[in-house]
Amino acid sequence: MHAQHHIGIDLGGSSVKASAVTRDGTLLESLNLPFVDRDMEWALRVEEAVESLRTKLGEPSGIGLSAPGLAAADERSIAFMPGRLDGLEGLDWTRRLGSSTPVPVLNDAHAALLGEAWIGAAAGVANTFMLTLGTGVGGAAIVDGRLLKGRLGRAGHLGHVSVDFLGPLDDVGTPGSVESEIGNKTLRKRCSGRHANTHALVAAVESGDLEARQIWERSVRALSAAVTSLINVLDPEVVIIGGGIARAGKTLFEPLATELERVEWRPGGHQVRIVPAQLGDLAGAYGSAVNSIRRQLPAVDGR
Amino acid sequence: MHAQHHIGIDLGGSSVKASAVTRDGTLLESLNLPFVDRDMEWALRVEEAVESLRTKLGEPSGIGLSAPGLAAADERSIAFMPGRLDGLEGLDWTRRLGSSTPVPVLNDAHAALLGEAWIGAAAGVANTFMLTLGTGVGGAAIVDGRLLKGRLGRAGHLGHVSVDFLGPLDDVGTPGSVESEIGNKTLRKRCSGRHANTHALVAAVESGDLEARQIWERSVRALSAAVTSLINVLDPEVVIIGGGIARAGKTLFEPLATELERVEWRPGGHQVRIVPAQLGDLAGAYGSAVNSIRRQLPAVDGR
Repeated sequence: MHAQHHIGIDLGGSSVKASAVTRDGTLLESLNLPFVDRDMEWALRVEEAVESLRTKLGEPSGIGLSAPGLAAADERSIAFMPGRLDGLEGLDWTRRLGSSTPVPVLNDAHAALLGEAWIGAAAGVANTFMLTLGTGVGGAAIVDGRLLKGRLGRAGHLGHVSVDFLGPLDDVGTPGSVESEIGNKTLRKRCSGRHANTHALVAAVESGDLEARQIWERSVRALSAAVTSLINVLDPEVVIIGGGIARAGKTLFEPLATELERVEWRPGGHQVRIVPAQLGDLAGAYGSAVNSIRRQLPAVDGR
Repeated sequence: MHAQHHIGIDLGGSSVKASAVTRDGTLLESLNLPFVDRDMEWALRVEEAVESLRTKLGEPSGIGLSAPGLAAADERSIAFMPGRLDGLEGLDWTRRLGSSTPVPVLNDAHAALLGEAWIGAAAGVANTFMLTLGTGVGGAAIVDGRLLKGRLGRAGHLGHVSVDFLGPLDDVGTPGSVESEIGNKTLRKRCSGRHANTHALVAAVESGDLEARQIWERSVRALSAAVTSLINVLDPEVVIIGGGIARAGKTLFEPLATELERVEWRPGGHQVRIVPAQLGDLAGAYGSAVNSIRRQLPAVDGR
């Protein structure tokens, strides 16, 4: 016999992560199955992951799934994901996985924040948002205990806030977005090709390279402006910073704290806590699992 | 006999607006009582307004109130409002007005949006936000059918988003905020004293003044960047633009639409509607009234 558990699936751009988790957040098992993005190979990997956990742990109480793109309002599919993972748009995962209970589907960044707000960096916090600093900048927000979804499931695209309204347009048209200022995809342009990626830039900063330091300080200042803007819009208790660039550790978090000292609105002295993400690559799978768990609880909130 | 009604009070900076409204949004009566901000004269005006409506229309089914500042989480008072309306912080309005039912208290911008989303520019819309362009820039947001409040009741301070991260700090510390770029409080500085206020600037634009036009275009471009950022964060169906500056009409809304054509992310062709506020000065009083009405309904949502 195995403990009652839920399966959380996080379908990424190049691998499927799956976790089997109990209702109190104990991880029983996790898997990472890479795929090449062609002929819906990813769908087979998802089925394989579920089958493998099922064989090992028995029938799950429920399954949740997250993937890139905008989730449909009924949470049965990803409604909008142009350009990659061909075949994902409109795919009904409850049917595909032959599940006897509905398989709720979430946007991947939404799922990651649900995970962090469940058993990670903002466990139990009712007001929080997360910025994920990587190739691009992703995000999600929970306000008054509820994950923001919005009309099209687009809410929480925190990388696409403008911090330079006269700046160049990013992938979705936002002028001078925080993604353009700190995302790895623009790094080579920002440093005129001197560094291959943000890790190399950060290493140069840490070794005392002044030019690297100027580039980095500009990025951190842009990030601080976005964070303080989002604090004024969303009023969190905790802000989570995740993604590969957050591994810069104090080289990121120290100047960010210094700049927020200058620009953060702190009514009555209240200061927002800025913390690193805790769940790493498994955040989305945890979030998908807890989304399934909550679907089966008597409704106490809309998360 | 009079119809069952609720009283909505909007305590402003220099006058108290009050409305008596039925549950379906019919206005029975409204009042506007000016005051000078000293010795809590405003509290007497609020009592007068309630008393006057009570004498005319009989006992209300409930009373709601809005005022500047951050509302307490229990909605019994304004918890934070430094610098003016001395005596407002912590004042329990249920007790002060001797009401037999709780008098829910809201931030004024929150109340105005509730009003507009009830019977105004976004009636019946579940995802919307409002920017109020005046001396400063205020705002509020409803996402997934719920008014965003946040940890301190600060959510929706949409004027304090940075659109120029290297810019000067505004009243709450935000660098290069949209309030700094379009709020009337910075107009004289932005036009080197050539125009007394934004109405004069807009009049100059309309009469073909090229210098005025450049200043205005910059403001509208900053506003567009903020609007598109907030669309990406909050994912509305409708964006409401209100406040005195919105009376510029097509001189504001036409270049705003043109710029959004360029910068708005429109997944699957979905375009957000940008509309002028409809309720004018009474929005906050309507919103306070509907907040009282909803408090007495069986809970169907958290608004």
